[in-house]
Amino acid sequence: MASLTLPFAATLDAATGDVEPQGPITERRVSDLQGLIADEAAWRRAVDHGNPIVYRVVAAPVPEVAGELPFSITTIEPGAIGDEYYMTKGHAHTAPEGELYVGLVGRGVLLLHDGREARAVELGPGVAGYVPPGWAHRTANVAAEPFRFLAVYPGTAGHDYEAVARTGMGARVVRSADGYRVTPDQEE
Amino acid sequence: MASLTLPFAATLDAATGDVEPQGPITERRVSDLQGLIADEAAWRRAVDHGNPIVYRVVAAPVPEVAGELPFSITTIEPGAIGDEYYMTKGHAHTAPEGELYVGLVGRGVLLLHDGREARAVELGPGVAGYVPPGWAHRTANVAAEPFRFLAVYPGTAGHDYEAVARTGMGARVVRSADGYRVTPDQEE
Repeated sequence: MASLTLPFAATLDAATGDVEPQGPITERRVSDLQGLIADEAAWRRAVDHGNPIVYRVVAAPVPEVAGELPFSITTIEPGAIGDEYYMTKGHAHTAPEGELYVGLVGRGVLLLHDGREARAVELGPGVAGYVPPGWAHRTANVAAEPFRFLAVYPGTAGHDYEAVARTGMGARVVRSADGYRVTPDQEE
Repeated sequence: MASLTLPFAATLDAATGDVEPQGPITERRVSDLQGLIADEAAWRRAVDHGNPIVYRVVAAPVPEVAGELPFSITTIEPGAIGDEYYMTKGHAHTAPEGELYVGLVGRGVLLLHDGREARAVELGPGVAGYVPPGWAHRTANVAAEPFRFLAVYPGTAGHDYEAVARTGMGARVVRSADGYRVTPDQEE
């Protein structure tokens, strides 16, 4: 049976977020979260004051095509914009495929939305989050250190960022006295 | 979009191999490796002397259907039958789907065979092994402690044990002075 890839071992460095051998790297800054943050004035200030990196995704060299199972490590830096914790842009899959997140370092919240309902799942070292097919997903870092997780998804899953930008995730992860809370998204 | 599962968090216990919430558990004893071990006399003796557990697979409650991404933790006990290290039965997928193994505890070897060629990849904590579509795969424990790994695979992958029982993996993982070596399978 033909395959695009050969077997290989990949080092997953929980301390740095590096994957070796390494595929594409994606870096997202505050400016890449345009339209996604509730407090637009705070977002604008953050862009104007250094526009820091919010998260980085280091992928293994596995192509996003049918039959392959790409994987990557995402590192979300600690921080917030207004009251909203640093987070990924969030996406839905373009095909009805699930995804698995495995927490490596730090503490995060996986937000999910199926078009009607929002759910939140807390992740940390040794805790996996299951994204069923049909659920858009976003992660936020709710602690003072980097939050890092392994993601595994079928090569045909695809990434639809527009759906999340248009309709939101139904909820937001914001600072609270005891760490974080998940609040309904008032823009809905 | 309809989904058979809802989002959930799963604890992956690297110290015990347990997954919580828990799906099906599969336990394999020496007797389940019938026909797979090179030294048949040693295999028979091990069956007659307690027929110990060789490995255990604890799955998360994710159904093996299209769109879902099942995951499980496999624990292979330390040991050997003759010179051959304790190992899984090995299987090919019935669909051209890949799989990802993530080492959690101990040290193991992932054997792969695409029908022509055998490959071996060493796994341990923080090291993932990529199984491309079309490669049959088996894992062996090459150390004196349990070898444990997380497996993630598409719900449509399927398990064909007969192909491996019939044609072997092209190689075996056996004891050697410095730990282990991978030798060509003389039965081929």
